[in-house]
Amino acid sequence: MARTIAAFQGEAGAFSEEAALALLGDVQTRGYRTFEDLVAAVDAGEVTYGFLPCENTITGSIARSYDLLFEHPRIKIVDETTRRIEQCAIGVPGARLDMLDRLFSHPVALEQCRRFFVQHAAIAAVAADDTAGAVRAIMEAGDARAGAIGGALAAQRYGAVILQRSIQDHDNNFTRFFVISSTMGPRRDLGRICLALHLPHEPGSLHKALGRFAKQNINLRALVARPRRGEPFEYTFYVELDAAAEADLTGPNIFVLGAY
Amino acid sequence: MARTIAAFQGEAGAFSEEAALALLGDVQTRGYRTFEDLVAAVDAGEVTYGFLPCENTITGSIARSYDLLFEHPRIKIVDETTRRIEQCAIGVPGARLDMLDRLFSHPVALEQCRRFFVQHAAIAAVAADDTAGAVRAIMEAGDARAGAIGGALAAQRYGAVILQRSIQDHDNNFTRFFVISSTMGPRRDLGRICLALHLPHEPGSLHKALGRFAKQNINLRALVARPRRGEPFEYTFYVELDAAAEADLTGPNIFVLGAY
Repeated sequence: MARTIAAFQGEAGAFSEEAALALLGDVQTRGYRTFEDLVAAVDAGEVTYGFLPCENTITGSIARSYDLLFEHPRIKIVDETTRRIEQCAIGVPGARLDMLDRLFSHPVALEQCRRFFVQHAAIAAVAADDTAGAVRAIMEAGDARAGAIGGALAAQRYGAVILQRSIQDHDNNFTRFFVISSTMGPRRDLGRICLALHLPHEPGSLHKALGRFAKQNINLRALVARPRRGEPFEYTFYVELDAAAEADLTGPNIFVLGAY
Repeated sequence: MARTIAAFQGEAGAFSEEAALALLGDVQTRGYRTFEDLVAAVDAGEVTYGFLPCENTITGSIARSYDLLFEHPRIKIVDETTRRIEQCAIGVPGARLDMLDRLFSHPVALEQCRRFFVQHAAIAAVAADDTAGAVRAIMEAGDARAGAIGGALAAQRYGAVILQRSIQDHDNNFTRFFVISSTMGPRRDLGRICLALHLPHEPGSLHKALGRFAKQNINLRALVARPRRGEPFEYTFYVELDAAAEADLTGPNIFVLGAY
């Protein structure tokens, strides 16, 4: 049997690669530059699974991920996993925290570590393209004064050292990922269904659609509303449901994105 | 009468400052480092209006903005505005596009201009903290080889020149902003209401809540679902409605974030 390949967006050591390895164990991983590239590779069957972030506790639902699934009907959600985002101060081997004068990372990661920079006023925050790429870059430069902020896996991937763990301000920073595939069926039976509903932009249309789920005693886990591109008065609603496989969810304007 | 002050998140020249000036005309503007800082200034009445992004056509709803409004009951939405995000290649005076060897910007802005970098292979993309800050930085450096990607207002604010307009890949990149205030009433009557609904995580609860709006023939414009912090089985739903002022929308678990 061919080896399982898990695709993620970002450079080696990204948080989404951490999520893939935590769920699947010691599989081969492959990073893609953009979410579009990642989804295209899953659609073409070049990889077994893709890890697509769908929700973050701070920023909310990631509507673009649902859109991408809807645009690729061959791809289904086959599992899901939630990963805590733990930012670490990372340096080159031999470095110590008190040697650092700058830390490179993605602006969002720098922002998540504001308190750390207040407490370490001698360390400047410097923007980089992404967290794992910043770790790679400091290792290439090999300067003990230059560190990076990223995940523990990024330190491991590039042979860097973790100088301090969990330097983020908030501990409730979790990202939920859909595990997607065009070649494999559901990995587990979690009793979850994700649907796209096309609804006219008129009073009561969502109420009517949800009535069907309410009648079957199906719980709503998540809901994302998206205007349809080029059709300004029509909406796509993405709903995630706790539903047994025998639930009646089919219909002319209902598209199943995953049942797992 | 005191002069109107409009608050935005970011450095002078940010897209949200563009949105504020486009809606309000020649008012005083004030930038805040974070959305939390911006909302605190609005709550304290230090500024007349705040511009809080609530939705982007590419990334979807910005749940954190709705959360911030819910956490600050003194603040109400008093208007809204939508702004197209137009990225420009910007240089120091005297620079030309063919002199550039690098363009600084926020990683998301760099990503939005992928096609430009493919067509201009001699120009490197370099990460910076934000778009307007990148324009400020190239003006401080004064090197004709170093440019920045940002909005037209950022070029104007720092005395830089626009070398090429609209270099972003997609033209459908719009951001919608809530105009918020703790001191002023609605600026216009757009017939829009934004509510927060506290609902138990049980089958049919959203269906039941929406039934009330459907009965009154009220249209749903947007809907954002958020797990409530620390209460994992309860949800806050943010709903935006097309509703006349006389609509009956009050209730024990309904909180009005704005009627405008």
